[in-house]
Amino acid sequence: MKPVVIAGAGMIAFERRDDDSLVDMLAMASLRAMDDAGLGDHPVDAVIVGNMASGLFNHQVSVASALVDKLSLYPAAAERIENGPASGGSAIKHGYQAIASGMADVVLVAGGEKMREVIGPRATDVVAYMAQPEAEYVYGVSLPAMAGMFARLYMKKYGVTAKHLAQVAIKNQANGLLNPYAHIHMKITMEGILTHPDSVVSNPIVADPLRLYDCCPVSDGAAAVVMTTPEIAKTLSSKPPIEVAGIGQATDTHALHEREDPTDLKAVRIAAEKAFAMARCAPQDVHVAELHDAFTILEIAESEHVGFFEKGEGAKALANGVTSLDGHLPINPSGGLKARGHPVGATGVAQAVELVWQLRGEAGERQVRDAVNAFMVNFGGFGNNVVATVLRRES
Amino acid sequence: MKPVVIAGAGMIAFERRDDDSLVDMLAMASLRAMDDAGLGDHPVDAVIVGNMASGLFNHQVSVASALVDKLSLYPAAAERIENGPASGGSAIKHGYQAIASGMADVVLVAGGEKMREVIGPRATDVVAYMAQPEAEYVYGVSLPAMAGMFARLYMKKYGVTAKHLAQVAIKNQANGLLNPYAHIHMKITMEGILTHPDSVVSNPIVADPLRLYDCCPVSDGAAAVVMTTPEIAKTLSSKPPIEVAGIGQATDTHALHEREDPTDLKAVRIAAEKAFAMARCAPQDVHVAELHDAFTILEIAESEHVGFFEKGEGAKALANGVTSLDGHLPINPSGGLKARGHPVGATGVAQAVELVWQLRGEAGERQVRDAVNAFMVNFGGFGNNVVATVLRRES
Repeated sequence: MKPVVIAGAGMIAFERRDDDSLVDMLAMASLRAMDDAGLGDHPVDAVIVGNMASGLFNHQVSVASALVDKLSLYPAAAERIENGPASGGSAIKHGYQAIASGMADVVLVAGGEKMREVIGPRATDVVAYMAQPEAEYVYGVSLPAMAGMFARLYMKKYGVTAKHLAQVAIKNQANGLLNPYAHIHMKITMEGILTHPDSVVSNPIVADPLRLYDCCPVSDGAAAVVMTTPEIAKTLSSKPPIEVAGIGQATDTHALHEREDPTDLKAVRIAAEKAFAMARCAPQDVHVAELHDAFTILEIAESEHVGFFEKGEGAKALANGVTSLDGHLPINPSGGLKARGHPVGATGVAQAVELVWQLRGEAGERQVRDAVNAFMVNFGGFGNNVVATVLRRES
Repeated sequence: MKPVVIAGAGMIAFERRDDDSLVDMLAMASLRAMDDAGLGDHPVDAVIVGNMASGLFNHQVSVASALVDKLSLYPAAAERIENGPASGGSAIKHGYQAIASGMADVVLVAGGEKMREVIGPRATDVVAYMAQPEAEYVYGVSLPAMAGMFARLYMKKYGVTAKHLAQVAIKNQANGLLNPYAHIHMKITMEGILTHPDSVVSNPIVADPLRLYDCCPVSDGAAAVVMTTPEIAKTLSSKPPIEVAGIGQATDTHALHEREDPTDLKAVRIAAEKAFAMARCAPQDVHVAELHDAFTILEIAESEHVGFFEKGEGAKALANGVTSLDGHLPINPSGGLKARGHPVGATGVAQAVELVWQLRGEAGERQVRDAVNAFMVNFGGFGNNVVATVLRRES
């Protein structure tokens, strides 16, 4: 495979952004990534936008063309890539393919979603359009509902407790406090969200057994990376280029109930295996990871499915601090979807931006130690389409 | 560039399809393409769906994952590609890049749109979401309105007449009569749509100077191709693989009025130049073409911008029969968007399917003679994002 690198990364703070349009947000993140790459007047051959539902949220299609226009990047090729919540990870994959195929030398990949200005159906309903239309959506199943059912099964099978779930939230909110780009800056404690009698009010059930603090917020935001060849990257910026060393992707049944074992996230497992095979490394070689914790249970389940821990050991590793910022394998140093927020199409790109910063040593107060291999999982649908990526610093 | 071929092509008839979901339509077209390719049990590595607005039209996102599920193609990678009305052409480009990059060996590319079951805003309004949101859409500009303004300027500058526009419609409807996949099977005459006094009623003004028969219909439909390497294609089917010899893409200002000369379709010109350069051939080498006649004026304007005719000569060539089925350079033998219909995301893929059939000699009553090089233009927005493609039969 031809090597492809990320030469620049940037994002805007995830929050409620009533005054910025989706294209404004994509443009701001893009300018930061282009500036970070030292792109100057170097032409951009293609623009790829990861976005799930601009038509539904913002009554706009062709957002990739709109971004080219906003940034005056004509005649750059441009497309929007949609893969539900994994749109960002898929956009990076298509950026890789554009360069590795020889069709483009420099690609701007921007992910974004503006979810708070929903006209008509509410955000959770729009998100539910990714469910199986004949077997799930029509019966009113939402993503939190699916996550609740999954959590119940997983907890029963592997001994995960409500306390473990709360520990994911507490860890990620603590990391998010160190991330100026995170949507929710809030210190939470076990007592505050779980053990105190009042916590049934402050942290109510969303979809049993998941409570409010087990679910990511609904956010507006955007993130971007500039991808290119190693040769061109060297001419642009003095910052070390980060290699996109491995990409793996896998699909599974659209409907959760059709899986032989619904607790088995087969697509996560296969996507990770493929990414590690392409990157010629193993889960044990990873120094920092961003996992897709749209719901707390997913961070635990993914940490096992990608091979960091044996099945049933993920919650214990979490409880023992292994995945904390100062642990052996920090997971979601950014605060994850839980604290950074989850503007759907932005998430996969934001994961990559965080990992670029971690690999370069630019992550400030939340910097992990000496990372060379970084890993991310961007989880589409309820695990029906998963993209796993290995990023690597030249060591 | 690594050679990539189309090994199989298929589509379903474009029409109003109340009984088929979008994913049903995509699956039917895909099965025909996979059968045509002789794919058998050969794995599909990636599925790419060209679709503009499944969320808005059908309240469904993640349609690529849904198609994988419907066809049991797990764990194939899957994404939806959106580039407005050029989503199909862009999907084929991403299919090319997936294979040429080495990330996939066999890619299923399916384009589709189900536009007739609009819940809420009407189809023309949804289509208008591709317009510039701050300068066009908010003021009520629709695509027919933009095409009307463009037509008026083009007619004045280049001497194109209402009769020329009617000739495009008459030619394409005549071709469509020979195409069992076309939505509108209707013989029309100059008297019936233009010169008879009653034609002001039967062919009313839509956006002056464009009348009803100058505009494509609103259709449901899907089309698909199987893309692979030449080596694998040989092992699958005895049909001649069709090389994707050149792909060019270009963007222009999002808003029509920001162009220095609004009659200059710069993105069409640049996309065509790039496609011909990659294919190492010239407009004069093309034997059959599918152009994006969402409005009759566009066929004439595109035929000039891609280099088939000098500016101002396209209408004359049309009038002289050069672009007729038995002419020197048949344009839109399928009937084009005008007669075949324009289910937005399907169109670019349907153009490729028609050209594969023409290059193989499988186009039945509308077969053109001895075509080796075929060319297509898929036109996004109002010319803000255009994909041009050269397909070639081994001669």
